[in-house]
Amino acid sequence: MNLVEIISVIKDCNSIAILPHVQADGDAWGSCLALGTALKKLNKSVKIISEEIIPRIYNFLPLEDSLIYDENAHYHFDLVIALDTGDTGRLGNRIKVFGSTENTVNIDHHGTNTGFARYNYLDAEAAATGEIVYELINILNVEIDTNMATCLYVAIATDTGCFKFNNTTSKTHEIVSALVKKGVNVAEVAQRVFDSTTKERVMLMGYAINTLELFEEGRLAFISITNEMIKAASAKEEDCDGIVNIGRNIEGVESSVVIREKSQGEYKVNLRSKSYLDVGQVAFKFGGGGHKMAAGCTIKGDMDSVKKSVYEELKRLL
Amino acid sequence: MNLVEIISVIKDCNSIAILPHVQADGDAWGSCLALGTALKKLNKSVKIISEEIIPRIYNFLPLEDSLIYDENAHYHFDLVIALDTGDTGRLGNRIKVFGSTENTVNIDHHGTNTGFARYNYLDAEAAATGEIVYELINILNVEIDTNMATCLYVAIATDTGCFKFNNTTSKTHEIVSALVKKGVNVAEVAQRVFDSTTKERVMLMGYAINTLELFEEGRLAFISITNEMIKAASAKEEDCDGIVNIGRNIEGVESSVVIREKSQGEYKVNLRSKSYLDVGQVAFKFGGGGHKMAAGCTIKGDMDSVKKSVYEELKRLL
Repeated sequence: MNLVEIISVIKDCNSIAILPHVQADGDAWGSCLALGTALKKLNKSVKIISEEIIPRIYNFLPLEDSLIYDENAHYHFDLVIALDTGDTGRLGNRIKVFGSTENTVNIDHHGTNTGFARYNYLDAEAAATGEIVYELINILNVEIDTNMATCLYVAIATDTGCFKFNNTTSKTHEIVSALVKKGVNVAEVAQRVFDSTTKERVMLMGYAINTLELFEEGRLAFISITNEMIKAASAKEEDCDGIVNIGRNIEGVESSVVIREKSQGEYKVNLRSKSYLDVGQVAFKFGGGGHKMAAGCTIKGDMDSVKKSVYEELKRLL
Repeated sequence: MNLVEIISVIKDCNSIAILPHVQADGDAWGSCLALGTALKKLNKSVKIISEEIIPRIYNFLPLEDSLIYDENAHYHFDLVIALDTGDTGRLGNRIKVFGSTENTVNIDHHGTNTGFARYNYLDAEAAATGEIVYELINILNVEIDTNMATCLYVAIATDTGCFKFNNTTSKTHEIVSALVKKGVNVAEVAQRVFDSTTKERVMLMGYAINTLELFEEGRLAFISITNEMIKAASAKEEDCDGIVNIGRNIEGVESSVVIREKSQGEYKVNLRSKSYLDVGQVAFKFGGGGHKMAAGCTIKGDMDSVKKSVYEELKRLL
């Protein structure tokens, strides 16, 4: 189904629900808020129904007043649109909302999308669902205002890692050029979305760096995070995210490992590689999974034995 | 003088020197290498003369074989072009090359450019000199190949902080869209230019974070760096760059300070603010300088007394 056909479905409906995936990211939030605003401009009755409250880094976005967080929301809608959602499992409890009508649309850029709706528009070439929504809004002939442009900018900037991931295309920059022209405050968005951190996160990063070790002529980087460190930093579990990239970004490092204490005797292992080493294979060996460049597993033992096991596996593949 | 007139000057000349500024950054290197390649395609004899060897993060760039590092280079050129260079002081020892002919061109985007050449093309609206060089090459009617596109991409991406600074415009993304279409490997460039670090740098960051203190309900962040830390990390002076942003990026922080031991009894103070506090004023008070958002000064004393003095000044303005 093409976008013009999707639009004729949308135009025939009056009350519309828009659903981002669970634990919605910048692309899901930005796409839903922009599309919601556009549909309201067409005098549709719109509800954006999210499973969780919008995370703090995105709460500066111009929030649609039709945004609701009730995961048990169950209304009658003429149409339900899932955005950036690869499969129905990613709708969480809101599968009830999705299932409340036959009239469903699924717009997404994930290559793995299962095509679960009545009307599906899938474009795996798009760097973000925000790119598709941008086109949709243009075909709908709704003028994109600064607020909508900011939402779409956040959608695209976050899913491309600030235009650094290899999904970033010429078209990505072309769309962003049009969005910036609508008045997006690029520097403010960047500060809030990409450069904002917390004291706890920084403190934990400091403790983590203190444990950094390089092996095999600097090709393997190991960082260990204990529960004691997390406690000392008053940090949260999620503050460990991204620490594995510190090791990965060091010149000469091929594989980076973060071993994090979960409970007594259980350790979560996060693995990254830079160019050739297949860390997915290593994670798989320990009952975990992932891809060549990013993988993870959970290993029982103590910090030293876990480190040694992972080290031996990586060394074999180096 | 407009770009078409600059081009007629260039077209009339055969042997051309291109000069980046001293301590050339990504914009200077990328602009010079792209323009050099374009002029060679027009069968000009081109020398790019740099004061220093290209830094490691840029040495993956397709290097013009006409690149020379001799700061005392003194040849006869029909034309000398300075790129991204605000004033003649920024030409260092190569002022001799620049002064060897009457026929000089100055292409730059710095608002403070002194217009020191015979022919000047200055555009302070351009986010990078790379944007101007892109247009120049288009008007020259030279096809931009992948190598040239990569050079211009690096020029623009670095001077806009990966499209995050407020100099980033709709036109910036429009130009980058065209460059990416020419085959720039966006992810590889990003990894090399933005995400590449060294073990020493990471270690120093860890030591620095260990000293992080927040005051005034988290609105002031202080980090101290001693010579001992730099030594323990085997780090260099330049590895301190950017550490001030760690404090600045913490939610709730308005002003971030890094105090770095220079020699016995002398401390370099680096100041940043996020929205309203004029750190330039603080630096000025201690005999330093800078802008509202970024400033620096050198203060005599010991770490504690320096910290206390700066703290008192910041507190007054908070």
